[in-house]
Amino acid sequence: MDLTKQAIDIFQAALAAVQPAQLIGEQLRLVNGQLCIGEQRFELGRGKIYVIGAGKASAHMARALEGVLGEHIAAGLVTVKYGHRVPCRRVSIREAGHPLTDRAALEATAVILAMLQQCTAEDLVICLLSGGGSALLEQLPGEISLEALQETMRQLLACGATIHEINAVRKHLSRVKGGQLAQAVAPARCLSLIISDVIGDDLDVIASGPTAPDSSSFADALAVLEKYHLTENIPAAVLRHLRRGEAGKAAETGKPGDPVFAKVENVILGNNRRALAQAEAAAQRAGYRTLVLSSRIQGEAREVAKVLAAVVQEIAASGQPLSRPAALLFGGETTVTVRGKGKGGRNQELALAALLALEGLEAPYAFLSGGTDGTDGPTDAAGAVFGPAIWEQIRAKQLDPRAFLADNDAYHFFEPAGGLLKTGPTGTNVMDIGIVLLPG
Amino acid sequence: MDLTKQAIDIFQAALAAVQPAQLIGEQLRLVNGQLCIGEQRFELGRGKIYVIGAGKASAHMARALEGVLGEHIAAGLVTVKYGHRVPCRRVSIREAGHPLTDRAALEATAVILAMLQQCTAEDLVICLLSGGGSALLEQLPGEISLEALQETMRQLLACGATIHEINAVRKHLSRVKGGQLAQAVAPARCLSLIISDVIGDDLDVIASGPTAPDSSSFADALAVLEKYHLTENIPAAVLRHLRRGEAGKAAETGKPGDPVFAKVENVILGNNRRALAQAEAAAQRAGYRTLVLSSRIQGEAREVAKVLAAVVQEIAASGQPLSRPAALLFGGETTVTVRGKGKGGRNQELALAALLALEGLEAPYAFLSGGTDGTDGPTDAAGAVFGPAIWEQIRAKQLDPRAFLADNDAYHFFEPAGGLLKTGPTGTNVMDIGIVLLPG
Repeated sequence: MDLTKQAIDIFQAALAAVQPAQLIGEQLRLVNGQLCIGEQRFELGRGKIYVIGAGKASAHMARALEGVLGEHIAAGLVTVKYGHRVPCRRVSIREAGHPLTDRAALEATAVILAMLQQCTAEDLVICLLSGGGSALLEQLPGEISLEALQETMRQLLACGATIHEINAVRKHLSRVKGGQLAQAVAPARCLSLIISDVIGDDLDVIASGPTAPDSSSFADALAVLEKYHLTENIPAAVLRHLRRGEAGKAAETGKPGDPVFAKVENVILGNNRRALAQAEAAAQRAGYRTLVLSSRIQGEAREVAKVLAAVVQEIAASGQPLSRPAALLFGGETTVTVRGKGKGGRNQELALAALLALEGLEAPYAFLSGGTDGTDGPTDAAGAVFGPAIWEQIRAKQLDPRAFLADNDAYHFFEPAGGLLKTGPTGTNVMDIGIVLLPG
Repeated sequence: MDLTKQAIDIFQAALAAVQPAQLIGEQLRLVNGQLCIGEQRFELGRGKIYVIGAGKASAHMARALEGVLGEHIAAGLVTVKYGHRVPCRRVSIREAGHPLTDRAALEATAVILAMLQQCTAEDLVICLLSGGGSALLEQLPGEISLEALQETMRQLLACGATIHEINAVRKHLSRVKGGQLAQAVAPARCLSLIISDVIGDDLDVIASGPTAPDSSSFADALAVLEKYHLTENIPAAVLRHLRRGEAGKAAETGKPGDPVFAKVENVILGNNRRALAQAEAAAQRAGYRTLVLSSRIQGEAREVAKVLAAVVQEIAASGQPLSRPAALLFGGETTVTVRGKGKGGRNQELALAALLALEGLEAPYAFLSGGTDGTDGPTDAAGAVFGPAIWEQIRAKQLDPRAFLADNDAYHFFEPAGGLLKTGPTGTNVMDIGIVLLPG
């Protein structure tokens, strides 16, 4: 059995488990007018059922939900990234821009909000959220232009603010984020079905939490701008809006304790941990002892790789923390600080750094790191996969892995070396998965 | 039970296990004229026994060895870092400079080499090596001055060369490194007893491998200088020596297969893994389930911390990879790229980054990272230890952990916050140990 092939098979098993159709088909049942999700029961009730949502996987989610609810769905609109449309019967699909919000996203969201205005307390609104939902679902306060939002985000991303700080500002420059979509759904009931693409599955982070309470305030948003000395530089309309909000003259986001949330349920249907669990099961079926390190791996890709390699080296040298045949599994989302001019993605960069950290390991192994959405950075690869045999190609083609890594050019290293992992778009996204196999 | 106190107790148990006296007392036995080390047997023989060596822990090793061999030792000389002398009966102790080689080290090494010249094939030379041995044991080729060596090393460290590349050059600017001490011991037998302070316990890396074969050549050393464009900049005498060596006009290091090594045994008495095993046993006695992640953790301290925190967060959230009460143990040696102007060490910096990555973790925990030599960077602390209660001090004293981390100033953060781990010099060094406790 080719080890890298086996690692790819395990990766594919993990992907299959977090396909929207699989997640919905496996977990949702319609029984006696109740929608059953695991142990939870949702009365469809006597009102209408609307399906809304946004995210890269949300069209696939809509189609699968149609398979469960069929004629029960009165109408719906879901926004996906350009090229991610799939045909649905009752739910309209619109395409819009990602990662930058564009006018198509604003228009689609306006249609969704208009649809919600007709909802009554009898109705049920099912909201399908997945990665990318933050850009694809947006309505701006009247005085904020799309350009002003984008300029503010650009400065926030560059200033070193944490994700929580960025979110505090972003939610207060929106009329749907931070629980405000749930406010628009009221008085109807809201059921959000979510595929999580964030570390720890924080409901207020996924798609910027349109149906989750937000504990940040306009004052917090202003404090972030002051902390990073941005008040002089961001568009004046943004500062004006936040100050109006702080003075109580603009609508706050949905706060914890707001009675609106008594009629909201947020259900995580799929996440990185679920994909890892399936990878683990597949590895066990293939005869490996398994260790799932974490579904929350973060940090600079090339440094994270060294820690992972340290665990692999330890397994090979001492049989700890698990003995061979061993499969080490990990998930999450690393970051890449771009210093070079090459082409790559965080998975390819992590794999290249791991290749160097595993140089000289005498045991046979396979190492795979891949994005579950099938896209790693601006490349046509999902990540990279290799075993020690890659060193023959490296020597034959006189590739210098360290030079490629220094130039953030993992794609142009793995392409000739033969380590690119290509899946095509997978229709889902639960961040990244890593698999290391050490046979007995 | 105070959790941070418990983490410190476990750290102390690990330290105790790798004390030179403990390592030698536990593993070495004199039985019927044989020195027994575990399963290995060494005939003392009819000749004399000499004890030589160098390293920060080597005086303690000499004293403990005197406890085993007593009057069997004919004479000896061991070089330690200034301030690390301990009284011995038959082995002389000299002090010298570390981390930079000084004249005292050269003089002590000259005395050792003179002593070895009288050895016969009947004799046994026991060489005590520990961290710091590379600087403390040195004889330079005639044409290389101490200043030329130091300038070459400075340029090598700054150019981005790997540890293996640096070692290839360094060994070829020495008459003792890279197996050459073993050549000087011949025709006597050589037994090296080693406390390892390097990742993976590579014999040719610890103390620059004075009694281990070296597979690098003068040509390799020259190739490194050319690769990093140093041939124009390093002292001319260094380049001249390497070129003479390449032309076969200077003595090569000891090569694998050299018959000299048939009479050499290198035995690792203590290493990071041994310390981790004792930490694991202590944690188990305290009721924890344990996971020893790796004894080979490497990478930039602040990024390594994120990976470790990801495993801790996963344990708290899902009970994987082990359920509480859980003790996560790790060892190795991280690096710090200094960008700020603060004071700290790799353990303190790793702990500060972990503190941030664990912010918001609701489970009780203790996190400890410490150097087993008791010294972390240029500070009087071995590392840092904290639990969630540290946040009360952070708020009360209005400390900004992110600002301290940005300035590489972990010492001045943990000092007022109350997280410095202080052990004083421990007399040993097997790199760093980390302990995370998550009670049930």
